[in-house]
Amino acid sequence: MTTARYIRIHENDNVVTIANDGGLPAGTMLDNGIELREAVPQGHKVALTNLSPGDVVRRYNVVIGRANTEIPKGGWVNEHRLDMPPPPQLDDLPIGNDDTVLEPLEGYTFEGFRNPDGSVGTRNLLAISTSVQCVSGVVAHAVERIRRELLPKYPNVDDVISLDHVYGCGVAIQAPDAVIPIRTLRNIARNPNFGGRTLVVSLGCEKLQADVFFPERFIPIKSGGFQRQDDNIALVTLQDESNIGFDGMIQAIMKAAEEQLVVLNQRVRTTCPVSDLVVGVQCGGSDAFSGVSANPVVGYATDLFVRAGASVMFSEVTEVRDGIAQLTARAANPEVARQLVEQMDWYDRYLGRGSADRSANTSPGNKRGGLSNIVEKAMGSIVKSGSTPIRGVIPPGERCTTRGLNFAATPASDFVCGTLQLAAGMTLHVFTTGRGTPYGLKEVPVVKVATRSDLARRWHDLMDINAGRVVDGDATIEEMGWELFRYMIDVASGRAKTCAETLKLHNSLALFNPAPIT
Amino acid sequence: MTTARYIRIHENDNVVTIANDGGLPAGTMLDNGIELREAVPQGHKVALTNLSPGDVVRRYNVVIGRANTEIPKGGWVNEHRLDMPPPPQLDDLPIGNDDTVLEPLEGYTFEGFRNPDGSVGTRNLLAISTSVQCVSGVVAHAVERIRRELLPKYPNVDDVISLDHVYGCGVAIQAPDAVIPIRTLRNIARNPNFGGRTLVVSLGCEKLQADVFFPERFIPIKSGGFQRQDDNIALVTLQDESNIGFDGMIQAIMKAAEEQLVVLNQRVRTTCPVSDLVVGVQCGGSDAFSGVSANPVVGYATDLFVRAGASVMFSEVTEVRDGIAQLTARAANPEVARQLVEQMDWYDRYLGRGSADRSANTSPGNKRGGLSNIVEKAMGSIVKSGSTPIRGVIPPGERCTTRGLNFAATPASDFVCGTLQLAAGMTLHVFTTGRGTPYGLKEVPVVKVATRSDLARRWHDLMDINAGRVVDGDATIEEMGWELFRYMIDVASGRAKTCAETLKLHNSLALFNPAPIT
Repeated sequence: MTTARYIRIHENDNVVTIANDGGLPAGTMLDNGIELREAVPQGHKVALTNLSPGDVVRRYNVVIGRANTEIPKGGWVNEHRLDMPPPPQLDDLPIGNDDTVLEPLEGYTFEGFRNPDGSVGTRNLLAISTSVQCVSGVVAHAVERIRRELLPKYPNVDDVISLDHVYGCGVAIQAPDAVIPIRTLRNIARNPNFGGRTLVVSLGCEKLQADVFFPERFIPIKSGGFQRQDDNIALVTLQDESNIGFDGMIQAIMKAAEEQLVVLNQRVRTTCPVSDLVVGVQCGGSDAFSGVSANPVVGYATDLFVRAGASVMFSEVTEVRDGIAQLTARAANPEVARQLVEQMDWYDRYLGRGSADRSANTSPGNKRGGLSNIVEKAMGSIVKSGSTPIRGVIPPGERCTTRGLNFAATPASDFVCGTLQLAAGMTLHVFTTGRGTPYGLKEVPVVKVATRSDLARRWHDLMDINAGRVVDGDATIEEMGWELFRYMIDVASGRAKTCAETLKLHNSLALFNPAPIT
Repeated sequence: MTTARYIRIHENDNVVTIANDGGLPAGTMLDNGIELREAVPQGHKVALTNLSPGDVVRRYNVVIGRANTEIPKGGWVNEHRLDMPPPPQLDDLPIGNDDTVLEPLEGYTFEGFRNPDGSVGTRNLLAISTSVQCVSGVVAHAVERIRRELLPKYPNVDDVISLDHVYGCGVAIQAPDAVIPIRTLRNIARNPNFGGRTLVVSLGCEKLQADVFFPERFIPIKSGGFQRQDDNIALVTLQDESNIGFDGMIQAIMKAAEEQLVVLNQRVRTTCPVSDLVVGVQCGGSDAFSGVSANPVVGYATDLFVRAGASVMFSEVTEVRDGIAQLTARAANPEVARQLVEQMDWYDRYLGRGSADRSANTSPGNKRGGLSNIVEKAMGSIVKSGSTPIRGVIPPGERCTTRGLNFAATPASDFVCGTLQLAAGMTLHVFTTGRGTPYGLKEVPVVKVATRSDLARRWHDLMDINAGRVVDGDATIEEMGWELFRYMIDVASGRAKTCAETLKLHNSLALFNPAPIT
């Protein structure tokens, strides 16, 4: 007979979460004397006391909802039996002024590609920026040709990639919110993995003209076209009269690419302090173990990176909205708290314009995995941020400029969040999942952490780290946090390849465009 | 010395458009006695009379704006010298009741793939629907393997493609406007080119669950997962416990794909009346010749297809908004007129929510090409619809169910419009361009028509038809309309391949999602 295993996060909680693979049947006796009144799936909650309608349900020592029916001691507390509380008001929050500096973690280094501007890449990539979807078909062919014909001559360059998207034309480019997708694309092109070199392929007639895409780096000239103001940027315009036919376009892109490859090939890895890393943390396909195993492990590693002086970003506005009071209380100063509130408020209004609210976040898989609502999901999600003061807030599409812990205000959509973290300058990505996702990006390595051993076993070649060992009692959060930290340094240094890199699994960029299309 | 060439669209117009490649210098004498007061670029307008501030400028016998400065006879009328009129009101429009049936065009057939539901495809494709971006990396590998290892065994199948997108999760799936992206994806899967077979690859935990994606065709079962209600649909869920690792996922997709290929391989082309075609017409990268050469040629072909009984869709709400009175007057009945107004009104409000209006449509390239504003652009755009009564209005993402001329209400963005026309059931696409675009789709053949000979010459392998011959005086609109009609039938029949097919130029699907993301 299997031993019944369950997790109680906080002593004030009146529910526990079932840990056994496959859940537990009715009649199972837990070692705290509770007998299950019904079968309860893995990751789902069991009441420790009799609950009547209106009684609060508490997990993470937070009210995640109120019972809407009688739930006996040992009963299953699921999303149907729980009413969600209203979101926290934004006008009376604890305002932090926490400039605690954790004990510095010294002596940790990685092998990175240092750029002229001081930033450090973890990979050496030629990235082709596109100003509009119209050029993507041609650029895809050019990328294949460059990879086959040119890349072998430049062995220090890891790969050539195109930065495809569906923005750039057919959009209200002067609408107030259009600044978000535009600066996102501009800042992605500056990602440290691209070595400070920018190659733009443009159509010519699109709305995202070169001088709108890269102001100051291009200025329009009277005869048409643009003059570059910076030798590190190059522009190929398909509509230029000099491009004769498809082959002319391919040749023009390949020629410009080779000029970049010559420079990129001079990049070599050098030993850099871990403080030069920009880490993006994210979760997707979460379950009830996300907040118990993988996210606390990531949170532990976050603290280590912060102590080592690195920049770490956590994100996903709708997944922290219900925990905003925790975040404002952790703000390094009142200005950071104010910026956190500003981002929450902006997103509340954005969702409201579309007749939605933060409750639209949870997915069917979250609920099947035991997360009853966004409040419970948020509490588990925030854990990734560790315990250090929040030193910076990054509006969507902006760059990270503050070392230490940052909140990058992004949607929770995995791909939109990843895209915005890339724009912020992320060079190393860590992603936790309970349900499982084969997520990968071309632009940066993505380290995937499973919340459960069952997933890690089944997806043996897709999950980099198994935090399920914490649930199984085989490792502590501290041990796994250090293991993740060290593995991430190996990945950053190119000594280890992530599962997604080995399998060449790449997802699309997904822009956040809150403005209308035309 | 070159002969000065210019185009006057309507006898009431007080401007003409310069036709010469490279424009004409100051001092040029036109044969109507007007002397150019300044250099005027190709496609741009010249005043036939002295204009004072407030005077109307008329092209296509429509007021495209009012002069905001003194413009002498022979002066250049450009976007800076013209104020745009307000949009037409929607509450006092001429309501058509025009059930004119043009002389039927009989005896035209094409070789198509007839499906069990009566629809007819122009290509025979295995399309893999994806329910969420998470699966795209794995599906991309599966598509490569299927193409290499399975497709050679099924020679009647033209290709295997994946229907990628960034919808499916991280979205407010119950927001009112979410119906648009969901039905778009659902209806694309039903495109006649896919033979009535649907293969869905799902992650498992995403919001776009199989029974939301395809209601009635899948029903949820108690143990998790879905029961299909229809043998023509298949589902592979990556999170299924039976899939062990990446290779397990690939094998599962390939197995399901082969079952579809066996059926699709039985499809053979048979002779079908042209009335079985569903044609989507679109323009992109427009210039002042779009409304003079390519769009009138397409309009002529549109009339031929309508006379032959086919379904033809024109689209692009912001590009017809200023001509709405022409459209309501052409409505086959008052209900069609009402639906036209409803779609205009919805889009006005959608743009307004984002602080934009229809003037956000025109691009820098449009203006450089001589289109001063959206009114002028709209007049040239509508010409693609030919002259027959409008018999149907298709809301975004819905299917075309009416033969004859339809207005498919879509954004003007080339890729969003193309995606929505695919959802409507388009099997043949015609696309006009003046500035030039290498546009192509994997799902249907795209016939590209150049407005100018200069473009057609430079982009010799990217442009299928050169309507610039009309501007050059080498062909009439009628002649070129017939040529286009016949070429499109050849393409539909697989006897001709489009430039984009030959070069394998493919653009992304781009969903219209007016609802928020989370």
